[in-house]
Amino acid sequence: MLDIKIKNQLIEVVGQNRYLDRKEELACFSYDAFIKEAMPDAVVFVQTADEVARILKVASEHKVPVTGRGAGTSVCGAPIPVKNGIVLCFSKMDKIIEINTADRYIVVEPGVVNADIQNALAPSGFFYPPDPGSMNTSTIGGNIAQNAGGPRCLKYGVTMDYILGMEVVLASGKIVKFGSKNIKDVTGYKLCSLFCGSEGTLGLVTQVILKVLPIPETVKTMLVTFGKLDHTARAVSDIIGSGILPAAMELMDKMTVNAIEDSSHLGLDRKAEGTLLIEIDGVKEACEKEMDNIIERVKKQGALDIQYAQTPEDRERLWTARRSAYGVFAKLAPDILSEDVTVPVSKVPVMIKRINKIGERHGLKIGVLAHAGDGNMHPLIPADRNNKEEWVRVEKAFDEIFHAAAELDGTLSGEHGIGLAKSDYLPLVMNKDTIELMSRIKHAVDPDNILNPGKFV
Amino acid sequence: MLDIKIKNQLIEVVGQNRYLDRKEELACFSYDAFIKEAMPDAVVFVQTADEVARILKVASEHKVPVTGRGAGTSVCGAPIPVKNGIVLCFSKMDKIIEINTADRYIVVEPGVVNADIQNALAPSGFFYPPDPGSMNTSTIGGNIAQNAGGPRCLKYGVTMDYILGMEVVLASGKIVKFGSKNIKDVTGYKLCSLFCGSEGTLGLVTQVILKVLPIPETVKTMLVTFGKLDHTARAVSDIIGSGILPAAMELMDKMTVNAIEDSSHLGLDRKAEGTLLIEIDGVKEACEKEMDNIIERVKKQGALDIQYAQTPEDRERLWTARRSAYGVFAKLAPDILSEDVTVPVSKVPVMIKRINKIGERHGLKIGVLAHAGDGNMHPLIPADRNNKEEWVRVEKAFDEIFHAAAELDGTLSGEHGIGLAKSDYLPLVMNKDTIELMSRIKHAVDPDNILNPGKFV
Repeated sequence: MLDIKIKNQLIEVVGQNRYLDRKEELACFSYDAFIKEAMPDAVVFVQTADEVARILKVASEHKVPVTGRGAGTSVCGAPIPVKNGIVLCFSKMDKIIEINTADRYIVVEPGVVNADIQNALAPSGFFYPPDPGSMNTSTIGGNIAQNAGGPRCLKYGVTMDYILGMEVVLASGKIVKFGSKNIKDVTGYKLCSLFCGSEGTLGLVTQVILKVLPIPETVKTMLVTFGKLDHTARAVSDIIGSGILPAAMELMDKMTVNAIEDSSHLGLDRKAEGTLLIEIDGVKEACEKEMDNIIERVKKQGALDIQYAQTPEDRERLWTARRSAYGVFAKLAPDILSEDVTVPVSKVPVMIKRINKIGERHGLKIGVLAHAGDGNMHPLIPADRNNKEEWVRVEKAFDEIFHAAAELDGTLSGEHGIGLAKSDYLPLVMNKDTIELMSRIKHAVDPDNILNPGKFV
Repeated sequence: MLDIKIKNQLIEVVGQNRYLDRKEELACFSYDAFIKEAMPDAVVFVQTADEVARILKVASEHKVPVTGRGAGTSVCGAPIPVKNGIVLCFSKMDKIIEINTADRYIVVEPGVVNADIQNALAPSGFFYPPDPGSMNTSTIGGNIAQNAGGPRCLKYGVTMDYILGMEVVLASGKIVKFGSKNIKDVTGYKLCSLFCGSEGTLGLVTQVILKVLPIPETVKTMLVTFGKLDHTARAVSDIIGSGILPAAMELMDKMTVNAIEDSSHLGLDRKAEGTLLIEIDGVKEACEKEMDNIIERVKKQGALDIQYAQTPEDRERLWTARRSAYGVFAKLAPDILSEDVTVPVSKVPVMIKRINKIGERHGLKIGVLAHAGDGNMHPLIPADRNNKEEWVRVEKAFDEIFHAAAELDGTLSGEHGIGLAKSDYLPLVMNKDTIELMSRIKHAVDPDNILNPGKFV
């Protein structure tokens, strides 16, 4: 519970209507799509940078923790207020301020949903490339906090690559601005890149300038199945090594395909060890040539079957399997853990085999989805966190997955972030001086540690 | 002069052969390609991260400034040791440690010359995209310090976009590592991006993992002239807006073309207000289609003449004009100042006109080269810094150029960095709280301010 004096100061900023502190209201802000929970003392909905600044001044004065929140779709516990305090919610700060396709940028507020940006841009023939699985609900502020990725990041890069400028409120309540409306800008430290992916531990973004790109004239999509996982992986390496950079190259393992078939009967090949969804985009003539090239390569690597999308509806159908995987696994048990390790692309097959063995060893069903072209893999474990015996096995499996990734020169996260889920594992991929350096930067920017405390830094 | 005790400690690390402190030797390390000078007290040549760590421990203990140096090609004074102390030179730490094209990365030491990376990669059919004008001499460590760009950064992005991982020695002598060999990695703060472009003020890079790309199968190059500058700018906007992203789109103004013709007689059109070098690369069929599309657009915007490169020799010939511009201007006077402002691409023609007026007002010849596709412009002023009256006019002109860029939503640097040249102008594009935030980060990482002191932070 917040002190009544603090409560009144917050209400003075946002009004009674945008302040919540009843237990049943607070509970809605105590979790995300990860498996932990913690109750805030209060939730405030902000509408302007000035309000954010005033709230952070109050919080600084009283040393109350403040955790930013967009749509709460994080899968690593980033917006869970583990030290309680204030959840500062951006969902009502959702204006698209400027669309300037001549200069290839847009200016938006943090509460805008990713898909709303796409919809606003489409009539001008432009798009914003990062496409996290949550794009229909997640906000751009959350995407920035976690440096979100998505399937087409193979070709186009992640959120950080599209941030030209930012307005940020620091813990002190000071409003700072980094970057500009210029595609090229090397004036001073690259603070946009430092704050992107900092999971709300350094400041709260109140406005952002994003780079946008013209929509490619053609998209070609195909679904390829392989009898052996090794063949699938060789096909991925062969395509990437040939100089073709597909927009997406999504791999589903046998367990994932079977789970989808059990649930949805899409006619996928249950015996295939690897199913690959490949999408290329660009100039029509280039796509056609690259498509032929890819077909030749996947056949050479032993493809059993290739399905092509001839129409937009076909394309949707081919994506359905990939998109439904998370939901299908989620239905198998009360909880689902979606992990996010990355390994160099040549090590994807070794990593999948290790994950399979880890699953067998602990009697767990672990499906693997992978953005195979960039080595970013999502092991999915359906389980029940109330079943203590099972949960111990789940935790052991995760521990072994992180260790396996680190051993293969991989890393803990490709696009979800660290949050609560993986902070204990940082020493696997960073030496203690590097972790200490992050703490020194955090301390310099937020000396009282009020911004999203209790997380990875 | 360094204290004899410090000198002996440094010699203990690098040996007598890699330690310089005679005045005539030190003078060679007192300047770069900018117009200021300052003498170091000693120069050391390092060969390993461990040596860098030991030197920084000595420097920290005695609070002696340390300025990193690659090839000294900076045009903003970044490696000039304005507070004297030690120049730590990386030119002998120049090994290419690993080339892994299957996983699309290379590992190199900071003293490797950019062009040597290209040459080492070429046999595998890969390249490292950032191509600063200095690429035949500048080192990758310097490129990282300044977050260097180049013509093809229009399509491919700047240095920061290619850094996957780094080993860095901090002021304390601690060795830290960020990032990994993975294309996608969102584990912890993006320290690679913070250190890239920090101009040696936060730490010294001792090893770097760089992303590489397959060499495109086709390159098409053309040189287009326009009677009016506005037509040139409209053509640039039209091409960019159409969804074509050329590898390079270089604009030379009338003064630049005439200076080149005075010197080299390449047959350029002296009456053209705008000369545009356009290069596209990618799949052959796509290049041909885009080339036709570009030709149609430049004709519609009033192109007077279009020359195409039919052979690699033709291509070299077309690039000769652009590449010789800096040298041609440099020959016009004892000194040359090459500036580096950026404006949103639609504002390029306004900015060029303002620069022309500023030149007229101060009786100066200011040529303009621009990476027109991303709004990054290089005003070139040949002048004599010993001519005090003229130099006052030069400084006034620069002051006005920076103000003009800021007024047009532009910024101080697109690819050269801030260094000594522009630190006084930061308040034009950043509020004081943002500048103070950079200082706090600097202080947290280098509390005694021994790394490249006296620069922008």
